[in-house]
Amino acid sequence: MADADPPDHDQTDWLRTWIGWSAPDRITVAGRDLPGDIMGRLSLTELAFLLVTRREPSAGERRILDAVLVSLADHGLTPSALAARLTYTGAPEAIQGAVAAGLLGAGSVFLGPAGDTAQFLADALEEHGEQGTDDASLRRIAEIAVEARRQVGALVPGLGHPVHRAEDPRVPRLYALAAEEGTFGPHLRLLALVAAVHEEATGKHLPINGAGAGGAALADVGVPPGSVRGFVLIARTAGLVGQLAEEAQQPIGRQLAHEIEQRASRNA
Amino acid sequence: MADADPPDHDQTDWLRTWIGWSAPDRITVAGRDLPGDIMGRLSLTELAFLLVTRREPSAGERRILDAVLVSLADHGLTPSALAARLTYTGAPEAIQGAVAAGLLGAGSVFLGPAGDTAQFLADALEEHGEQGTDDASLRRIAEIAVEARRQVGALVPGLGHPVHRAEDPRVPRLYALAAEEGTFGPHLRLLALVAAVHEEATGKHLPINGAGAGGAALADVGVPPGSVRGFVLIARTAGLVGQLAEEAQQPIGRQLAHEIEQRASRNA
Amino acid sequence: MADADPPDHDQTDWLRTWIGWSAPDRITVAGRDLPGDIMGRLSLTELAFLLVTRREPSAGERRILDAVLVSLADHGLTPSALAARLTYTGAPEAIQGAVAAGLLGAGSVFLGPAGDTAQFLADALEEHGEQGTDDASLRRIAEIAVEARRQVGALVPGLGHPVHRAEDPRVPRLYALAAEEGTFGPHLRLLALVAAVHEEATGKHLPINGAGAGGAALADVGVPPGSVRGFVLIARTAGLVGQLAEEAQQPIGRQLAHEIEQRASRNA
Amino acid sequence: MADADPPDHDQTDWLRTWIGWSAPDRITVAGRDLPGDIMGRLSLTELAFLLVTRREPSAGERRILDAVLVSLADHGLTPSALAARLTYTGAPEAIQGAVAAGLLGAGSVFLGPAGDTAQFLADALEEHGEQGTDDASLRRIAEIAVEARRQVGALVPGLGHPVHRAEDPRVPRLYALAAEEGTFGPHLRLLALVAAVHEEATGKHLPINGAGAGGAALADVGVPPGSVRGFVLIARTAGLVGQLAEEAQQPIGRQLAHEIEQRASRNA
Repeated sequence: MADADPPDHDQTDWLRTWIGWSAPDRITVAGRDLPGDIMGRLSLTELAFLLVTRREPSAGERRILDAVLVSLADHGLTPSALAARLTYTGAPEAIQGAVAAGLLGAGSVFLGPAGDTAQFLADALEEHGEQGTDDASLRRIAEIAVEARRQVGALVPGLGHPVHRAEDPRVPRLYALAAEEGTFGPHLRLLALVAAVHEEATGKHLPINGAGAGGAALADVGVPPGSVRGFVLIARTAGLVGQLAEEAQQPIGRQLAHEIEQRASRNA
Repeated sequence: MADADPPDHDQTDWLRTWIGWSAPDRITVAGRDLPGDIMGRLSLTELAFLLVTRREPSAGERRILDAVLVSLADHGLTPSALAARLTYTGAPEAIQGAVAAGLLGAGSVFLGPAGDTAQFLADALEEHGEQGTDDASLRRIAEIAVEARRQVGALVPGLGHPVHRAEDPRVPRLYALAAEEGTFGPHLRLLALVAAVHEEATGKHLPINGAGAGGAALADVGVPPGSVRGFVLIARTAGLVGQLAEEAQQPIGRQLAHEIEQRASRNA
Repeated sequence: MADADPPDHDQTDWLRTWIGWSAPDRITVAGRDLPGDIMGRLSLTELAFLLVTRREPSAGERRILDAVLVSLADHGLTPSALAARLTYTGAPEAIQGAVAAGLLGAGSVFLGPAGDTAQFLADALEEHGEQGTDDASLRRIAEIAVEARRQVGALVPGLGHPVHRAEDPRVPRLYALAAEEGTFGPHLRLLALVAAVHEEATGKHLPINGAGAGGAALADVGVPPGSVRGFVLIARTAGLVGQLAEEAQQPIGRQLAHEIEQRASRNA
Repeated sequence: MADADPPDHDQTDWLRTWIGWSAPDRITVAGRDLPGDIMGRLSLTELAFLLVTRREPSAGERRILDAVLVSLADHGLTPSALAARLTYTGAPEAIQGAVAAGLLGAGSVFLGPAGDTAQFLADALEEHGEQGTDDASLRRIAEIAVEARRQVGALVPGLGHPVHRAEDPRVPRLYALAAEEGTFGPHLRLLALVAAVHEEATGKHLPINGAGAGGAALADVGVPPGSVRGFVLIARTAGLVGQLAEEAQQPIGRQLAHEIEQRASRNA
């Protein structure tokens, strides 16, 4: 196939990609020679950032990226992990299907909120950024943004967690790491003020959640909000591969489905 | 299954996981405190390895893991990348669906061969490992394994590539890295001998491909063959997130589908 | 959620389903004996309607359901069909993955509009239904609904098609069938008025599209708007199975991807 | 987009499809005018058969097709239904993802066996068909096929069910319908003999299962074995749409995941 000449298209300049291409003796990815300049030098996390932002992260940025990724990779038998395991039960020969099933639950309710928070913060900063990013200005931006959500009866992205009701333990760690690495930027700062303003306005304590803080931390190192959910998917794929390795050794899917079916039958 | 009563809660020791769980004030992943012991310390690659093998990789192992992952993440407008982009065209609001679509093509033809090669090599080593792993013994194992595949008319996993017909440029780089990091083990060694034996037996040069070498390298650092395809999926998710970030900025999916539809209509 | 004790088995009345269950000697679906009362009597279309609405369709309703389903099943090498075929190229052994990939593009841009139109019409009827459903009242509802969309700069669901710019040939047929079967109800009627009002207000002819008319026709026979996208998915699955049967016999995926990759490489 | 001329390709006759195409004023599907010749005349089941086999089914064939489809659409809280519901829990706005997740479990263990049985029977008939299809010849073919599977330690496709241990109630119904409609052909007949021969050879009663009988019945009306899994996916999509309509009204996914996570945590 490789030697067949494809048709000539003088005007097809719309069909292009920066990501990569192959020739018989070389593979180019992100404008770099894959074997010589990427393999052995960049981690997967660094390549992901490079592919999305078209620059390599600094060491500090890389540490934040990985901290966010590992914080969202997995935490046990979530709906996403269960969907992957139950899919594996029916099709163990096609692990890509089980991973895909697990990823498909990363929507508006679970995992999606990381990107929603990044977008919410980025929009607020862009709309009202003329106010500056000193603390007083950010506080004013937080007030406007929280008020706007409350007026339409919408939840404020990045706040609240069904399990971690006082504090999500990932959040202070992420804030400390960002400070340590010098990537503590306007998104994380605004999110903290959003939480404070929200509590003052409502009298209700909704802690920053790990997804929200992760989204803000990614935005602060330069991940576009539209790609934050993508980064969460990379993290989650790693978690799902772990789940499925365990399911292969120590299956729970079949018995789980059987028990659920039996219980539901008794209630029929 | 149907007539067995579902187990009583007290005895449900089958429903357990080592991967992780949450409590109001802490999150445990892989037996470690997620914020205190994983975030800021482990990369996503290291966490993936830990989740699958239940131990942390050494620095050398981590470098090999990342080298394999970046080598398989992406190389342009492959069927997998195109499927993701075309899915994004229809449902840009659900990026998890586009990533899932891209992953679903990681089967027996593309990407799957990394795991198939790891399994093929591991099986050969296990079946004939009593022969030792010195060069002469490995060569004998390679001869038996190649001959067995040829007798049933099956392809030898890990050999041949439609574009890289003389040499896949990722392969020598991966072998050099494994040597450098001291992880050059029986799987990579056996694969090299398999390629040599195959060429001698058939008179046909089929170079080791990048997927095959990647699978062997992962097996040499301790990834179970059954999880190799999973590692490829992690890598590919990173590539797909890059593809979709580009598709959002510089879309090709819609025009591509339109052009294809028009060409096919004229041939109808 | 985390601190709430999981309910005791005796009280788990939340875990129930009307859809179906199995016992050693019988299978119950939709409250009916599957072998005796469904097999040989109901078509798949009728069962789908029954599962969603909990009643069997009349003969006329069934004809409308099928007319909508066949109208949305397939029309050639769309992005959805191409995603399925390209996925099959990589994983022909897992056809469920190729079908899933094809379905995942049924989002806000393609196919999703059927459900969006049904929801838009149902919302307009519910909000302003006190006005009655005589022609004059429906026209007033159409004016309000179109005006509301235009004020926020949103497109009006169900109007316009990139190929069928004067008229979508499925639409008059669907309207005629609904009239013939006595299912020509407020959703189809309102949609026609929405198109007329939109053209008067903008001076621009945007014909009713097949997805929009299909969504309205389904709503008129009683499919809840939230399940309209689901019905489209059933239809599309049938189309994708046809596409994949052809791809298996007469493959285009591999050569297509190769050609695209080559063209993009030359533009790099 | 529609009016831009795509590039001319004199030699691209490989890029063609029989399935369908669109022009501004007409849509062609399966060589027929979609609005005039398919809508209002063919059911979705008939169109699916037409797309795969390129001919329309007779009335009797259509009844068998529907009987098989409804028999496999759903039977309650199976792993596939649970995966779909749990995915919906995380991403209710993208129902196509939840349906895809449910389909992805249609593999070698669940639902896939329908196609595996059809293939097994078709292969046996093709390899040994010179023996004729009278009862004695079919019995001989059954003996050879069962023996071949037993020699390699493989299960015989189409036999055995974890719940229906004496008899799967769908099976006698399907056999009766096939007799009634005159589609009782060599696949169903061979399957019955395979079950009998297997019981004689092993002394163990493994009844024909519904998936196996469904696969054989589809093969007898002309569905190619390679498309049987596809037909099952159409049926299953209908079932999943029913499951998700119920999940939207009466959700169980979130509480189920919560309960499972809590139980697993206590066992940690």
